Amino acid sequence: MTDLTPVLDRADKNLDKSLERLFELVRIPSISTDPSYKADCRKAAEWLVSALTELGFTASVRDTPGHPMVVAHHEAGRADAPHVLFYGHYDVQPVDPLELWENDPFAPAIKELDGGRKIITGRGTSDDKGQLLTFLEACRAYKDTVGSLPVKITILFEGEEESGSPSLKPFLEANRDELKAEYALVCDTGMWDTQTPAIAATLRGLVGEEVTVQAADRDLHSGLFGGAAANPIHILTTALAGLRDETGRITLPGFYDGVEETPENIKASWGTLGRDAKSFLGEVGLSEPSGEKGRSVLELTWARPTCEVNGIWGGYTGEGFKTVIAAKASAKISFRLVGTQDPDKIRESFRTYIRSMIPADCSVEFHEHGGSPAIQLSYDSPVLTKAKAALSDEWPKPAVIVGMGGSIPIVGDFQTYLGMDSLLVGFGLIDDRIHSPNEKYDLNSFHKGIRSWVRILAAL
Amino acid sequence: MTDLTPVLDRADKNLDKSLERLFELVRIPSISTDPSYKADCRKAAEWLVSALTELGFTASVRDTPGHPMVVAHHEAGRADAPHVLFYGHYDVQPVDPLELWENDPFAPAIKELDGGRKIITGRGTSDDKGQLLTFLEACRAYKDTVGSLPVKITILFEGEEESGSPSLKPFLEANRDELKAEYALVCDTGMWDTQTPAIAATLRGLVGEEVTVQAADRDLHSGLFGGAAANPIHILTTALAGLRDETGRITLPGFYDGVEETPENIKASWGTLGRDAKSFLGEVGLSEPSGEKGRSVLELTWARPTCEVNGIWGGYTGEGFKTVIAAKASAKISFRLVGTQDPDKIRESFRTYIRSMIPADCSVEFHEHGGSPAIQLSYDSPVLTKAKAALSDEWPKPAVIVGMGGSIPIVGDFQTYLGMDSLLVGFGLIDDRIHSPNEKYDLNSFHKGIRSWVRILAAL
Repeated sequence: MTDLTPVLDRADKNLDKSLERLFELVRIPSISTDPSYKADCRKAAEWLVSALTELGFTASVRDTPGHPMVVAHHEAGRADAPHVLFYGHYDVQPVDPLELWENDPFAPAIKELDGGRKIITGRGTSDDKGQLLTFLEACRAYKDTVGSLPVKITILFEGEEESGSPSLKPFLEANRDELKAEYALVCDTGMWDTQTPAIAATLRGLVGEEVTVQAADRDLHSGLFGGAAANPIHILTTALAGLRDETGRITLPGFYDGVEETPENIKASWGTLGRDAKSFLGEVGLSEPSGEKGRSVLELTWARPTCEVNGIWGGYTGEGFKTVIAAKASAKISFRLVGTQDPDKIRESFRTYIRSMIPADCSVEFHEHGGSPAIQLSYDSPVLTKAKAALSDEWPKPAVIVGMGGSIPIVGDFQTYLGMDSLLVGFGLIDDRIHSPNEKYDLNSFHKGIRSWVRILAAL
Repeated sequence: MTDLTPVLDRADKNLDKSLERLFELVRIPSISTDPSYKADCRKAAEWLVSALTELGFTASVRDTPGHPMVVAHHEAGRADAPHVLFYGHYDVQPVDPLELWENDPFAPAIKELDGGRKIITGRGTSDDKGQLLTFLEACRAYKDTVGSLPVKITILFEGEEESGSPSLKPFLEANRDELKAEYALVCDTGMWDTQTPAIAATLRGLVGEEVTVQAADRDLHSGLFGGAAANPIHILTTALAGLRDETGRITLPGFYDGVEETPENIKASWGTLGRDAKSFLGEVGLSEPSGEKGRSVLELTWARPTCEVNGIWGGYTGEGFKTVIAAKASAKISFRLVGTQDPDKIRESFRTYIRSMIPADCSVEFHEHGGSPAIQLSYDSPVLTKAKAALSDEWPKPAVIVGMGGSIPIVGDFQTYLGMDSLLVGFGLIDDRIHSPNEKYDLNSFHKGIRSWVRILAAL
């Protein structure tokens, strides 16, 4: 492997200019949900095209029915180098309530906190303008030093990530050949803590269901009918209670098909992170893990499937009391999936079970609220191993492979439409206040983020 | 026993005048919930005092903080005759939506239906002006014929029955000595069908509870916390599901203390009423009894205790989906009681059970929504037996002893404040549309109702 010192030095020397470029981009108020910022969204896209062109990319603004995409290409210095797609988004969240901001959200600045930690303030500094620029500035350090890039790079910057990405899937489908690479690099996640970089290797999938149980054809008086007429709340609560056994396992037949145990070395590394039930749940006023018994909270939230009732309603719910037997009762239920659990099979198993709990004279209706499989990178894939080593070289503590309890839709879309896995590396911190007033990005995240990408690009 | 023929004949001859008096009373729009009819309520009370005075009662309008009571007294012809309290109410329900009435609600009229059945239309004809006048007109037939009454009578007419009876308990308490009799006659219930009179011997009691389970101190994201953080909806639904076993019995310790089996002869008489699960539940779109297995719907709703969840809510209940784990979930639960079940003990048993289902790091709060024991007249009391025989003499079919699934608060109040049982006899029919537009009372109910009271007063 080439000696990276000149490239890393160059990244250090460039830092002031890199910051200037970040400030320029942050000053453009590219709020995608608010139509009055439509021109600003385009301006941000054009700014990126110009920056990419300056870096030697073939770059263009690509129109969509919504805000434009930015697509760019750059060959590698060597013909046998891998080809990666780098993804980020240039749109930002709205800024209200504006009065809670200590600094103008679109006038970025460096601020020194007590204790000397320096932060970059402004909307989008962390989500996602600062993050995506770490990658471009790493490319710049390469070009300035070596004159070429170590991998072939396609860039995709989106302008609708904060407003549901309505144009993304059609765009991926229409431009499959142009966008397809060996794998994607996604820079929209965070560090474990200020000292410890992280790579997200698993993202749980999701199945959403809504169930409505209907008993009588009208609300009944519980004095006249109580004890004889079916109560849909009883039917629903009994069915929901039966979804879980006393060990916390989900009882649906076939539910655990495709769920694999987390490797012992990964579980051991999670054990060193100091995030136990007390610290994790203590933040929200709880202390006891509630799911499957005998597993750590990190395993429960990163590597185990769940079934949660997210909402329930039926009968009289106002002030006082009404002795009614409701005609209907409803619940919204979601399953988080891991491994290769099949969303369709789980939905069907759930519906079959619920139907089996409905008395002959009652009925049930289902309403689907989406479904997506889990994303699971192999814990020992070469890309993951290389990126982990590169990050560990840069930061005080070794990189950790983490899971994510929620989903990042783009990762599933890249698998579905472009048939490729994603490497999720980012430098955000838990206190970055993304989506809230006073968003910031640590100067250290930006600086060492650039250096991290230099190392990762070399390692790939 | 005296020959009743002259008295009954007199009731028949009086019928037109009796109807005129009913019309006069119905014309007074004594809607107790609407303050703009305050003067009309008083007018109805004054009309009753005048009618009672004319009948030889010592009668007076008695002020309360709300609408006035009417109290009247009349001695019996014989000194050793029993003393009864007759109760009715002169207030009526509001009449909106007025456009749904075929006749002016306060311009009563006789209408002949297809098939020749005659009805009296107007608000309050059945609930309760027509019913209470059956008793006064029976008294009139006695006075006109015999010159005296066969029992000593105290009258209590209330003007707030349709608005929660706020003045009743204080009034009973303050006038205990004046109102106390051997038992009460309450004419505010119905017939089994047009041919079959009924006496209500049991009224179920009620315990109302509201439960709120609190888990985390805020709503959580189910991706980040799902599988590890306690979900209050799971806790609540599991606890509620456990209230019932697979045979439909309530599982709370001590719940069935004080519940006695219904005598076989009573169950047999209920079996002849033709009200099976199919006909009873078929009216509301159901067919299978849902409570304790192996019991008829009449037994389930008249003579067995229940536990019903009347409302449940928690988490996200709007359109679409939100992957939230709620901080709280709540339910409203009611128990219908029979026999000598103790409301306080059942409430405590319920709370103890629910507390036992709450994890150590979660909490639960209870809110009481009232409690009252069941009313159970002895199925073989002399009063019941006499009234049953008297009614059976008047109507085409023998009277039936029925239960009532709901509660009539006045009956409990008479027990609590005046220490006396009530005999519940009334001539309303299921299609009287009380509380709805086009309220009516069958002419036959009014006419044979008067004759029924003649017979009952003689029998007592």
